[in-house]
Amino acid sequence: MSSSQANNAASAPSHNQLDTKAQAWSALFSEPMSDLVKRYTSSVFFDKRLWQADIAGSLAHAEMLAAQGVISAEDHASIQRGMAQITSEIESGAFEWKLDLEDVHLNIEARLTQLVGDAGKRLHTGRSRNDQVATDVRLWLRGEIDLIGDLLKELQISLVDVAEQNVDVILPGFTHLQVAQPVSFGHHMLAYVEMFKRDAERMADVRRRTNVLPLGAAALAGTTYPLDRERVAKTLGMEGVCQNSLDAVSDRDFAIEFTAAASLCMVHVSRLSEELIIWMSQNFGFIKIADRFTTGSSIMPQKKNPDVPELARGKTGRVVGHLMGLITLMKGQPLAYNKDNQEDKEPLFDTVDTLKDTLRIFAEMVGGQLNPATGKKEGGITVNAPAMEQAALKGYATATDLADYLVKKGLPFRDAHETVAHAVKAATTHACDLSELPLTVLQGFHPAIEKDVYECLSLRGSLNARNTLGGTAPAQVRVQLARHRARLA
Amino acid sequence: MSSSQANNAASAPSHNQLDTKAQAWSALFSEPMSDLVKRYTSSVFFDKRLWQADIAGSLAHAEMLAAQGVISAEDHASIQRGMAQITSEIESGAFEWKLDLEDVHLNIEARLTQLVGDAGKRLHTGRSRNDQVATDVRLWLRGEIDLIGDLLKELQISLVDVAEQNVDVILPGFTHLQVAQPVSFGHHMLAYVEMFKRDAERMADVRRRTNVLPLGAAALAGTTYPLDRERVAKTLGMEGVCQNSLDAVSDRDFAIEFTAAASLCMVHVSRLSEELIIWMSQNFGFIKIADRFTTGSSIMPQKKNPDVPELARGKTGRVVGHLMGLITLMKGQPLAYNKDNQEDKEPLFDTVDTLKDTLRIFAEMVGGQLNPATGKKEGGITVNAPAMEQAALKGYATATDLADYLVKKGLPFRDAHETVAHAVKAATTHACDLSELPLTVLQGFHPAIEKDVYECLSLRGSLNARNTLGGTAPAQVRVQLARHRARLA
Amino acid sequence: MSSSQANNAASAPSHNQLDTKAQAWSALFSEPMSDLVKRYTSSVFFDKRLWQADIAGSLAHAEMLAAQGVISAEDHASIQRGMAQITSEIESGAFEWKLDLEDVHLNIEARLTQLVGDAGKRLHTGRSRNDQVATDVRLWLRGEIDLIGDLLKELQISLVDVAEQNVDVILPGFTHLQVAQPVSFGHHMLAYVEMFKRDAERMADVRRRTNVLPLGAAALAGTTYPLDRERVAKTLGMEGVCQNSLDAVSDRDFAIEFTAAASLCMVHVSRLSEELIIWMSQNFGFIKIADRFTTGSSIMPQKKNPDVPELARGKTGRVVGHLMGLITLMKGQPLAYNKDNQEDKEPLFDTVDTLKDTLRIFAEMVGGQLNPATGKKEGGITVNAPAMEQAALKGYATATDLADYLVKKGLPFRDAHETVAHAVKAATTHACDLSELPLTVLQGFHPAIEKDVYECLSLRGSLNARNTLGGTAPAQVRVQLARHRARLA
Amino acid sequence: MSSSQANNAASAPSHNQLDTKAQAWSALFSEPMSDLVKRYTSSVFFDKRLWQADIAGSLAHAEMLAAQGVISAEDHASIQRGMAQITSEIESGAFEWKLDLEDVHLNIEARLTQLVGDAGKRLHTGRSRNDQVATDVRLWLRGEIDLIGDLLKELQISLVDVAEQNVDVILPGFTHLQVAQPVSFGHHMLAYVEMFKRDAERMADVRRRTNVLPLGAAALAGTTYPLDRERVAKTLGMEGVCQNSLDAVSDRDFAIEFTAAASLCMVHVSRLSEELIIWMSQNFGFIKIADRFTTGSSIMPQKKNPDVPELARGKTGRVVGHLMGLITLMKGQPLAYNKDNQEDKEPLFDTVDTLKDTLRIFAEMVGGQLNPATGKKEGGITVNAPAMEQAALKGYATATDLADYLVKKGLPFRDAHETVAHAVKAATTHACDLSELPLTVLQGFHPAIEKDVYECLSLRGSLNARNTLGGTAPAQVRVQLARHRARLA
Repeated sequence: MSSSQANNAASAPSHNQLDTKAQAWSALFSEPMSDLVKRYTSSVFFDKRLWQADIAGSLAHAEMLAAQGVISAEDHASIQRGMAQITSEIESGAFEWKLDLEDVHLNIEARLTQLVGDAGKRLHTGRSRNDQVATDVRLWLRGEIDLIGDLLKELQISLVDVAEQNVDVILPGFTHLQVAQPVSFGHHMLAYVEMFKRDAERMADVRRRTNVLPLGAAALAGTTYPLDRERVAKTLGMEGVCQNSLDAVSDRDFAIEFTAAASLCMVHVSRLSEELIIWMSQNFGFIKIADRFTTGSSIMPQKKNPDVPELARGKTGRVVGHLMGLITLMKGQPLAYNKDNQEDKEPLFDTVDTLKDTLRIFAEMVGGQLNPATGKKEGGITVNAPAMEQAALKGYATATDLADYLVKKGLPFRDAHETVAHAVKAATTHACDLSELPLTVLQGFHPAIEKDVYECLSLRGSLNARNTLGGTAPAQVRVQLARHRARLA
Repeated sequence: MSSSQANNAASAPSHNQLDTKAQAWSALFSEPMSDLVKRYTSSVFFDKRLWQADIAGSLAHAEMLAAQGVISAEDHASIQRGMAQITSEIESGAFEWKLDLEDVHLNIEARLTQLVGDAGKRLHTGRSRNDQVATDVRLWLRGEIDLIGDLLKELQISLVDVAEQNVDVILPGFTHLQVAQPVSFGHHMLAYVEMFKRDAERMADVRRRTNVLPLGAAALAGTTYPLDRERVAKTLGMEGVCQNSLDAVSDRDFAIEFTAAASLCMVHVSRLSEELIIWMSQNFGFIKIADRFTTGSSIMPQKKNPDVPELARGKTGRVVGHLMGLITLMKGQPLAYNKDNQEDKEPLFDTVDTLKDTLRIFAEMVGGQLNPATGKKEGGITVNAPAMEQAALKGYATATDLADYLVKKGLPFRDAHETVAHAVKAATTHACDLSELPLTVLQGFHPAIEKDVYECLSLRGSLNARNTLGGTAPAQVRVQLARHRARLA
Repeated sequence: MSSSQANNAASAPSHNQLDTKAQAWSALFSEPMSDLVKRYTSSVFFDKRLWQADIAGSLAHAEMLAAQGVISAEDHASIQRGMAQITSEIESGAFEWKLDLEDVHLNIEARLTQLVGDAGKRLHTGRSRNDQVATDVRLWLRGEIDLIGDLLKELQISLVDVAEQNVDVILPGFTHLQVAQPVSFGHHMLAYVEMFKRDAERMADVRRRTNVLPLGAAALAGTTYPLDRERVAKTLGMEGVCQNSLDAVSDRDFAIEFTAAASLCMVHVSRLSEELIIWMSQNFGFIKIADRFTTGSSIMPQKKNPDVPELARGKTGRVVGHLMGLITLMKGQPLAYNKDNQEDKEPLFDTVDTLKDTLRIFAEMVGGQLNPATGKKEGGITVNAPAMEQAALKGYATATDLADYLVKKGLPFRDAHETVAHAVKAATTHACDLSELPLTVLQGFHPAIEKDVYECLSLRGSLNARNTLGGTAPAQVRVQLARHRARLA
Repeated sequence: MSSSQANNAASAPSHNQLDTKAQAWSALFSEPMSDLVKRYTSSVFFDKRLWQADIAGSLAHAEMLAAQGVISAEDHASIQRGMAQITSEIESGAFEWKLDLEDVHLNIEARLTQLVGDAGKRLHTGRSRNDQVATDVRLWLRGEIDLIGDLLKELQISLVDVAEQNVDVILPGFTHLQVAQPVSFGHHMLAYVEMFKRDAERMADVRRRTNVLPLGAAALAGTTYPLDRERVAKTLGMEGVCQNSLDAVSDRDFAIEFTAAASLCMVHVSRLSEELIIWMSQNFGFIKIADRFTTGSSIMPQKKNPDVPELARGKTGRVVGHLMGLITLMKGQPLAYNKDNQEDKEPLFDTVDTLKDTLRIFAEMVGGQLNPATGKKEGGITVNAPAMEQAALKGYATATDLADYLVKKGLPFRDAHETVAHAVKAATTHACDLSELPLTVLQGFHPAIEKDVYECLSLRGSLNARNTLGGTAPAQVRVQLARHRARLA
């Protein structure tokens, strides 16, 4: 984070031999105290990424000040001219960010004043850094949420692509990591589509509460200038205006709410990653992912490790940690603005970066990359359908189907369940599948069993039979695919 | 939580002298291992609170099974009759909850079968405990969210009441707990109304995503019976049906999302509590709360401690802890259902209880209790307006107003800010307020200063001047009060 | 937690139709506000489990007061008599705990005064509830830490037992869940012994910092009576006395430190659980656990699910949540005692219960149960050695051995690593193991390869070769087993 | 964190109008996917700060390899020479860190091989990156813990200095932020010394468990080379050797334990900060801190805000977040090494940086800076003793003393407590302190009250009376000061 200025003094061996404290400190540390305090309290080295939002907010503020007659049209023009130049300076890398100017706001305002004189000094009329920073973060986050929305859509499309190609592939569905019932691999992929769909909905909810304007709250109490806050909100594309100035400068709900939504999304990523990792383990061998999402070992020449899913699973911790950090930050803070709040930015920035990187990589790792020559995606998950089907044959995955068969013959479900448990026990003793037991043996468990039982004991028969809304039957999966395609179009 | 069966063996002094392990264990522990495993894996002693939801879900399921011809009308009638009896048994306390039957579902189903025979055994047709428990929790949580919505409204009304009575009371507005600018105490109260309003909106969003039906997903793959899941959803008042069976049984997003929303709400409570506690400290003396929300000391006879706000501030930790626990629970879980998920209930239950108790107590502690005789609320926060105003005179709270005054005389804001800083320094030296400096002294800082400056240097002048949308001027606060009254009516 | 008085009003359908608030509240809630406040601020229903510590602390305090002449010998005798009776009342269940008396301390003191009159009223001389509760919690926790120490030892012994029986069993060692190198299953078990050994060390460190006496700090400032605090510490077996009264009543470090140590221990449990669950999955089939640690399914008759490991993995979240809750609780609290601190108990109690239950169950699930008839343990983990060895043959687990072979022939390690990568590629193409490639083919990769290469390419050869301290060679594992046996004796 | 490559595409307005996905992505993102994957999986840009530890570990490994005859003396000499050059390259900034080489280990090894050829390639013999990185992090953390130990000592000394200067200054001791009893301000400062003393003890415990050698565990199973691991441990100053290779590469307990200890330390910092902030608020006015630890406002010219304590309070969240992140990271990971573990570094690094910066700043902010001219510290906390004493007179702080007075006259404590409560009520009615009530009025509450009562009702009388071990009497505080001085010398 902020302190990447590595303190490499760790191994300095002589620090205990120094005579005086003053020397000791200078030996132990790479910077004098005043520099340290400056760095500790400054934010410019991380909040400068808000520069576009800061300039956009200032321009909207200036436009309104001019419209309200608080500043002159000339001042307004000067501010616009100055900001245009600053924009190009920052974009070209020529802008000099100064630690002494604390934050992105003062750096830009100081440069503006250098460029356009008193007009620059008039820009801060009717506002404070307290409402300015809140506005900047909200504007910036809104843009990032939109990008995340796009990425969530891409990832859903990738999952839908893989699902569509594998509607008829049979996977052993697990509960408790024990074979439960056969499911369509496409159906399994679509479970993740549901999760990321909910994530997108949550992000949209967060956006709505983020996209509200604090500017005009000034330090905490509003201002004595005749501001038109709704005009500024409109200019900035915001949906409304914070209605209470004290709340406007002290509210960080949107940051916590965003990080909570991001944490949930990463939890989904961690679950998918866990499955990919298990599926790639040699004893499963269900899938492969493209080589560039794996790495080798410095010692074991045979290794191809699923690094990307593992890292993503690990990065869940990072994002959840940021959520915890932000909540701890706000707990028990009295109104209105306190300096604690400066600590909202780094966790928020890192959450956005981590989430965006992860979603983008997963979209391609799952679904592959568009080959412009063919117009098709290539290099996504490779499915080993025989290995999946083989595994589905191991754990009496159709036992429930036998119970259902008996129910249809008139048994109460609970009795059928008990009967089948005995049949499974017998099959285990014979080390065979239920479908491999002779009819006479099956009839020994219940006389109502007839020849047609073998149909429901097959994996595919079991699959096709689960043909109600949300079920795993390929027909149902295709209905869902169509729904998702329409939604994501 | 679950293990309230206190192990009081802590002080058993002789346990090291026992000869054999077996004896040691029996001496150390109050229960044999098999009982312990049973208790460890069972949930009935906490999930029995889901009984109403469980019965409602079963009745809707049975109604649909009958409509679809899966069970007979007679069986349906028997189930209805049995459930009616079970309901009255539970309500009267006659129902015997059995640890051996693991959970609320099996306890009720076993009793049903006892009462109505085979019809009871047929109820579980086409469902599994996996989709059943997910349905129960969602139904229960929906009801609790509605109650929480009511309580959030009550608390907002209490805050609005106090705000309305104190629109013209001057409080020193703080940033960094340093006197910043005078604000209306009513305005300050309304800042919390904004927070709890957002909480209510978030709860409504969570409700929407909670109020969706998993039933019919069965164990994980759907079912072979011709269920009409949408009929069940409609019967239960749910807004939709989970579209993927694997997701339906493994999704706990709603629990995490609810707990995140509850955590934010408790963070708001913790901020209000922090302020109440500071305001009650003798050096502030701004407010009092009714005696029954305070307690005394076992040693110091003079004490009246703000126990309720302190406890509420502390309980923030409890709810945040549950959020972290739930996220940790779900991280890295493969699909579909795993037993880990049983651990979702206790944190969720305790979050609901804590939030509801806290909101209810705060609504009354802030706004008081309705006196049926007068039709008025009594016993809410008592405001010491003179103490607040006195405190507002301490920290040069109108310095910004002087700067604004100079801006209106033509100075750029940054120059005015600098000029006023010198005036404040002078006033500090004279240990007086800015408004107590003679005109000639003030003019020494800038010649444009005239006699009318004293108007803007008064607390009330400062307050009235912040008359833009969201500002602290009483006129603005009254606009907001009207908005909230209309909204909360 | 505390509020298990379920609010079952969730489904009360008519609450929106009520006319007046007062009625609404009585309809919505099962208790009047004053009862709710009482319950909200009281702790007796959870802190009564401290009764033994409370009485022990009071007796030590009274003994010292008498020795110092602060109370008379008669009063001391009366207090002893009264406490003896209270002890037997609590043990027999006859003691009546009253919500109105707030907490365990006042409940016991009130009863004492009832029994012995003024002597009871004199017991509180020179102490306060603030130092009393801190003393009680520390005494109680010390006892629980000792029990946890015993349980950690039992679990280590179980793991050592299983390790000893499986020193020569070959397991595919995984990194990234990809086959890496063959390891001894016994070696793998001993990795967990190292973890739980560290947990025990941490618990011992926490015990040292917990076992210090706050009593005598009184409310916050010490007392005016001539207490002999070191005498009390000695009576209670404590290692020292809190040296600062303000710190004594406000310090909850020991609770956080304990919960952090417990969280780490649960993380270890979660890792072991994850492995057990994977190893039991049909595609692995490496182990079985006894039936009573598993459960079946309400719908799938064939299921035997590893419920206990899954629940334990889930309960990690619960304990981690408590850690986060406690840290949030203490963050930003001013000195000295605040009511927030009452919230320290439930998370601490639940952490202790969860950890103890989990460790006890795992000790038996892993190592089995002592059969008194044979003097042997039975029913622990069942190992399927052939399945493990079969799996170890899948992923070119001896590739590193081939590289090491080449190094010993003079190649730099990095070159050998590269050479073997090509050999693995060839074996993959032929779908065979490295040991199945003909010598001539192997020599094609490097001419230095000779017939003796096949020895190092075998799983057992690879295993035996890792014969340095901490390595997996059975000879090394036996050295470690001896070390652990001696340590745990 | 890692992704400081700001994605400034937030405001790019045209991204929805692009025709093809490929273009869309290239417009949205600043880097192609392969670069992103490389950056996502690489660690060199944060783990390069381990370079000194990496080289130290490699040199110790090479020395042992040579001593054991695994590499030649010439190779050893070449490695030493190469590493010396690399050290000077890194120190001078000439070393080129390459993303393509993933991490600090490969960057250094690749450069070594460039410099010294085959000898460089032989360095990796008998080790893997898995044990290498674990060794590096432990070595690095050990050094940082030592620095933190020094800083904790400095901070304690600062607090002791301030305590010594203020032994006789009377502060109103608070419980529940209500005036409780008068305490010595020096005594209050020493409460924090106790906290930071415990932090130092915990750090020493973490050091002990950190300072153990994983090297020689290789990838996970040990190695086939005749390593002498204990020799390496001795060379590196480590206290022991990890006894199990699987545990050695997968254990991150030390990182979690360190972060937990750091979190507790930051909780203490947050409590001190909270008090400093409250004490600086105008209604308290108890203390001042030096200007350079405060900042002003962009809008309010009069402000001097306690930025450093506020930021430190906020940074508690950051460190607690890292703890949560690390626990989440490790939860449920199967053995042995997984790529998730790469995520251990950034939280650990940032925790170390945050803690060190905070402790260093606090040491000087509290105790001031050494003036070499006078040999004295200047610029620490400035105490306003009259304001503190004035505040102590507000809340009947000596009521307990009156109760104790009555106990000494023979009343049971509980009765005395009740009597005094009535006296306080009377004083409240008269709006005066207890010490201002006439003797006759006091005697009205109890006839045993005599003229000497006024002594115990004075603040200083109350203070001096609390003269038992750990109490606030100045005599006791001086005993503690002497103990701390001796300990910290």
